[in-house]
Amino acid sequence: MTVAAFRNARALRTYLDSAPFGDKPLGLVPTMGALHEGHGSLIQLAREECGTVIVSLFVNSLQFGPTEDLKNYPRRFDADLLFCERRGVDALFAPSEEEMYPSGTPALVAVGLEAEGLCGASRPGHFQGVATTVLKLFNIVRPDRAYFGEKDMQQLAVISRMARDMNLSVDIVTGPTQRNPDGMAISSRNEYLSTEERQIAAVLYRALRVARQRIGDGDRDPLLPKNAALKVLEFEPLVRVEYVEIVNPEDMQAVNEIAGPVRVAAAIWIGDTRLIDNVLCEPSNKPRRRRK
Amino acid sequence: MTVAAFRNARALRTYLDSAPFGDKPLGLVPTMGALHEGHGSLIQLAREECGTVIVSLFVNSLQFGPTEDLKNYPRRFDADLLFCERRGVDALFAPSEEEMYPSGTPALVAVGLEAEGLCGASRPGHFQGVATTVLKLFNIVRPDRAYFGEKDMQQLAVISRMARDMNLSVDIVTGPTQRNPDGMAISSRNEYLSTEERQIAAVLYRALRVARQRIGDGDRDPLLPKNAALKVLEFEPLVRVEYVEIVNPEDMQAVNEIAGPVRVAAAIWIGDTRLIDNVLCEPSNKPRRRRK
Repeated sequence: MTVAAFRNARALRTYLDSAPFGDKPLGLVPTMGALHEGHGSLIQLAREECGTVIVSLFVNSLQFGPTEDLKNYPRRFDADLLFCERRGVDALFAPSEEEMYPSGTPALVAVGLEAEGLCGASRPGHFQGVATTVLKLFNIVRPDRAYFGEKDMQQLAVISRMARDMNLSVDIVTGPTQRNPDGMAISSRNEYLSTEERQIAAVLYRALRVARQRIGDGDRDPLLPKNAALKVLEFEPLVRVEYVEIVNPEDMQAVNEIAGPVRVAAAIWIGDTRLIDNVLCEPSNKPRRRRK
Repeated sequence: MTVAAFRNARALRTYLDSAPFGDKPLGLVPTMGALHEGHGSLIQLAREECGTVIVSLFVNSLQFGPTEDLKNYPRRFDADLLFCERRGVDALFAPSEEEMYPSGTPALVAVGLEAEGLCGASRPGHFQGVATTVLKLFNIVRPDRAYFGEKDMQQLAVISRMARDMNLSVDIVTGPTQRNPDGMAISSRNEYLSTEERQIAAVLYRALRVARQRIGDGDRDPLLPKNAALKVLEFEPLVRVEYVEIVNPEDMQAVNEIAGPVRVAAAIWIGDTRLIDNVLCEPSNKPRRRRK
């Protein structure tokens, strides 16, 4: 089976408008390319649920800060095309920068609380760029469902908020974070790591699991699991911690007390590479006092 | 014929999803209610072009500043319903504030250049509020065409820019400004004027025509028609001028030289009432030197 590939929105619309969808949903998996098993699992989910699956590939310059890795972000169209072909994707939408942002500052989507703190603190404008591009992709493709990975949880919260606030008709579907055997979350940015750095990187997930364990054991004060995770991370001299936070899974704001499900989220740097990860944590039903 | 009226988006969608549109377009005329012949002409235009015509009534709090006339803005649902019924509107969408903005600061649309200057200068956040609400209405109704009056030219530029930048599938259609016999643009805010103020208000259009005349006669320097318009306005002691500008009709930015079509736009205050108006001006083909 071959994948139809489109560089411009008009051609994609012509294809979609003439495709016989019937009553089955149209699914969109928005990506920045450099596809890996994280994307693969989202494509598989879409393939199971939808009649037609579109994957978009667009390295969205709006969501990169001036000092970030826009230029070095991995791009490999042919490999991505093959990746999609093997997974039964119907069409690829790979617009150029010119196609998406032809001139000047575009109309932008500004999202509230969800975009503040965590990655939003160190990446000003990042989630505005994400939301704006995703909204454009939604308006071009008009999917019934769109698939996003749990790894980028703040992005997911921003997009869910946008979809709700702006009365979008698309259902936002989440796929679980895919991990390497050592637990490290799969990400396109892992490629930046040297062999040595790569071995160290699994510490991020180990630290999150330590925090999750403590929350499961009954910690109510978020400082306790946070400090436990920090201790694990600080044990690695090559790791620089950007943040570890215990947040409300809906609005991404740090909680004062762990009284329901929370997410433990962290961003770290290893060398020049920034890595993020997060885990959902259910508090214990029987809170206990910590041993002194 | 009776008009179907809906207070919530879900009920409207059910109605629209079950309506047999066939191939004829769905038209939306977004309004803040207090319908007058300006709206009437847009409804008529939509009626001529579309199979189904929806009018939305929503006094959009987002587009009013804290010191503006949100509370006093005229509201008369029954009269508006009758107005729509008489003009063959198919359905009215009159959502509550709660329906449109249920909680907190919503995801917002930020629009660029077009929202700056003119009314944007004195009404910060106004066009962000307009764009956000119009985008929500578009996403709820999903019209093929949406109708906006030329009188609110900056709003029209902002929405056209949003539609283009965000890949909206709706066509933005403009209807000409409707005027009273003395030339005054019809507006819901005209009701605020006393009888005396009402008689004075026609000076706004007179001033714009004086500027247009000068541009048609060959003025290339925008200061000349601008000052001519100001002179007319300043002759009325009850008028306070907010701005008179000669702008590019696309991006709403003041021009340095009149070398193609421009809009002369003005905002004035008479007592507590703010009035705006604008005219499109074609420069003379044969520029002439002004007599000294």
